[in-house]
Amino acid sequence: MTSSAIRDLLKVISQLGVISLAGGLPAPEGFPIDALLAACERVLRSPDARTALQYSPSEGLPALRRWVAESLPWPVHEDQVLITTGSQQALDLVAKALIDKGSVVLVGSPSYLGAQQVFTTMQAKMVSVACDADGMLPEDLAAKAAGARFLYLQPNYENPTGTCMSAERREAIGQVAARLGLVILEDNPYGDLWYRQPPPAPLAAKLPENTIYTGSFSKILAPGMRLGYLVAPMKLYQTLVKFKQAADLHSASFNQHVVLEVLRDGFLDRHLPAIRELYQRKRNAMLAALDRHMRGLGASWNRPSGGMFIWLRLPEGLSATALLPRAVEKGVAYVPGTPFFAGDADERALRLSYVTATEAQIDAGIALLAKVVQEALEALPTEAR
Amino acid sequence: MTSSAIRDLLKVISQLGVISLAGGLPAPEGFPIDALLAACERVLRSPDARTALQYSPSEGLPALRRWVAESLPWPVHEDQVLITTGSQQALDLVAKALIDKGSVVLVGSPSYLGAQQVFTTMQAKMVSVACDADGMLPEDLAAKAAGARFLYLQPNYENPTGTCMSAERREAIGQVAARLGLVILEDNPYGDLWYRQPPPAPLAAKLPENTIYTGSFSKILAPGMRLGYLVAPMKLYQTLVKFKQAADLHSASFNQHVVLEVLRDGFLDRHLPAIRELYQRKRNAMLAALDRHMRGLGASWNRPSGGMFIWLRLPEGLSATALLPRAVEKGVAYVPGTPFFAGDADERALRLSYVTATEAQIDAGIALLAKVVQEALEALPTEAR
Repeated sequence: MTSSAIRDLLKVISQLGVISLAGGLPAPEGFPIDALLAACERVLRSPDARTALQYSPSEGLPALRRWVAESLPWPVHEDQVLITTGSQQALDLVAKALIDKGSVVLVGSPSYLGAQQVFTTMQAKMVSVACDADGMLPEDLAAKAAGARFLYLQPNYENPTGTCMSAERREAIGQVAARLGLVILEDNPYGDLWYRQPPPAPLAAKLPENTIYTGSFSKILAPGMRLGYLVAPMKLYQTLVKFKQAADLHSASFNQHVVLEVLRDGFLDRHLPAIRELYQRKRNAMLAALDRHMRGLGASWNRPSGGMFIWLRLPEGLSATALLPRAVEKGVAYVPGTPFFAGDADERALRLSYVTATEAQIDAGIALLAKVVQEALEALPTEAR
Repeated sequence: MTSSAIRDLLKVISQLGVISLAGGLPAPEGFPIDALLAACERVLRSPDARTALQYSPSEGLPALRRWVAESLPWPVHEDQVLITTGSQQALDLVAKALIDKGSVVLVGSPSYLGAQQVFTTMQAKMVSVACDADGMLPEDLAAKAAGARFLYLQPNYENPTGTCMSAERREAIGQVAARLGLVILEDNPYGDLWYRQPPPAPLAAKLPENTIYTGSFSKILAPGMRLGYLVAPMKLYQTLVKFKQAADLHSASFNQHVVLEVLRDGFLDRHLPAIRELYQRKRNAMLAALDRHMRGLGASWNRPSGGMFIWLRLPEGLSATALLPRAVEKGVAYVPGTPFFAGDADERALRLSYVTATEAQIDAGIALLAKVVQEALEALPTEAR
């Protein structure tokens, strides 16, 4: 199942009235409509309205780059910040700048599919590094890193597993990278979505000269604005700007002005706690539903401390891909884990998103999924049970 | 002088208070601020506001794709339309889909620099085809087309020369392409900016199966919204969507909703005549200023029938690149023609933009430029005059 097969599936699902625990869409009730509307009005009524509608620098608006630099938890100069059309574009620019045909890129097993897809379009060879519940395994990284162009990581509440890499693991991964001179692409779209405590410091804070860091406004404001950013060491920055200019000249000036206007008065200090609370409540709803309906069937799942996803392993003998059509037929959808693995896949794994559906839908969806699992178990040949 | 050297130059110019006839920025007084503000308000106050802020299909909003298909002067199905982040992105997607390292891409001599820059980032080999005041020469194209991946063209008021390719030339170029099975990338950011009569039909209308066509909302609404589109034959469409998804998932949903809202009630029927009138007035102002100040110095220039640019040749013995620092010192800037040529450059050529400056600035700028030319001529050794 490729990324486009998943897209096709999601399209079908959206037309069927199925409860979708599949898509990675932020909770729409968290979008700050009033703040965005007020910002649009301020921008378009200001004497600078025509500037907001004109071409603008490829690097992004200076004031927004400054805001990003100042918001990060390590010393970043605004000249290192490049505003991108969503953080997906940051991945694309890095791929263009660093990948030649056949270049090795290291990814976690599993790892974000949208990133792997970008690396594949540039004809990279993906090498997958083993991970556990604390994140990537430093020994396996050390064994596979020789000659790689870069290591791709989502240390915070990664898509698809929801894993937050522990501080110790970050330290150890950082040491391997430093020793081998390995470039890290640290992708952080979910880092602000922590529940009880912020994630450990980014790898970029320890290894600013080795790390390209990306962030996004999609999860903290709204994905429909398509704004993200990257932070690069100065030695790579100009190359990335060159590719940015070729890609789309610059990200929408209007959206940059509007988002800056929203951010300016400390809006996130009020908004983010509400989003965190909302997402935590939804995670709790899904964990409660899993406890209620799935317990005793032999499935296992994790308990993410932030982000949007739970990673579930079906009971032995079941395949998440094979089960999906039956689940959709019953009225619930998820994303099978297989496509997220560059190497050997865990056929039993699947991704559940808890942020788009309502709490009632989450409970109903998990109940349906448990029923499908139950029936699939009963249909297994006796010796496989 | 590379594209980034030009950008650096433009940056310096904007800080110096120099009259810029250099940048290719649409006239800011033509931006429809009121219509955009009203559209933002309608979108964000509608029950669908959250949809406008959410992730959306990589292909673009169905209703906007339909609008584009219906607006084009040949039968296009909305399933062939892909909404892009400015038409620059359309060039980037085509480059990724069709260019391998060393692939030959045919471009006019001269041709749009931003396109050549994209093709270069994908390591294409540019081969330049001779052009005259009616556009590309079919015989030269036929002589050079063997084995080329595609032919890049801006038939309408092209950047940098302002040339509109004649109907006969389109016919002849189309015949060469059809005979050789050559793919055409027909880039049309300026086509709506005609003055007295619309340009001849696009090549895509004759050769829909051979042509990828691009258009833009940057010149008819505002570049800061970063919206454009491409129309592709179905056999290429899915590949382009795959690269679009990798590039930035989709173009900003919010901007697509807002632009659709602006377009919906026939806004362009009222707006475009005003833009055409404005641009024609500015072209007339520059032609008048050239007549007034530059006549008799041995320079020559064309008289574009649409778009944003005049192409000027300096008197014999002068180089546009060498003259630029003196011009900037005197207080006027232009873009030298050299970087637009993939092959042998015309050192005497330069591009003048008449749409960003006011009419008073245009007159003052051309007067300064004439003075610089005059002085440079006087400084030439006698035998070179």
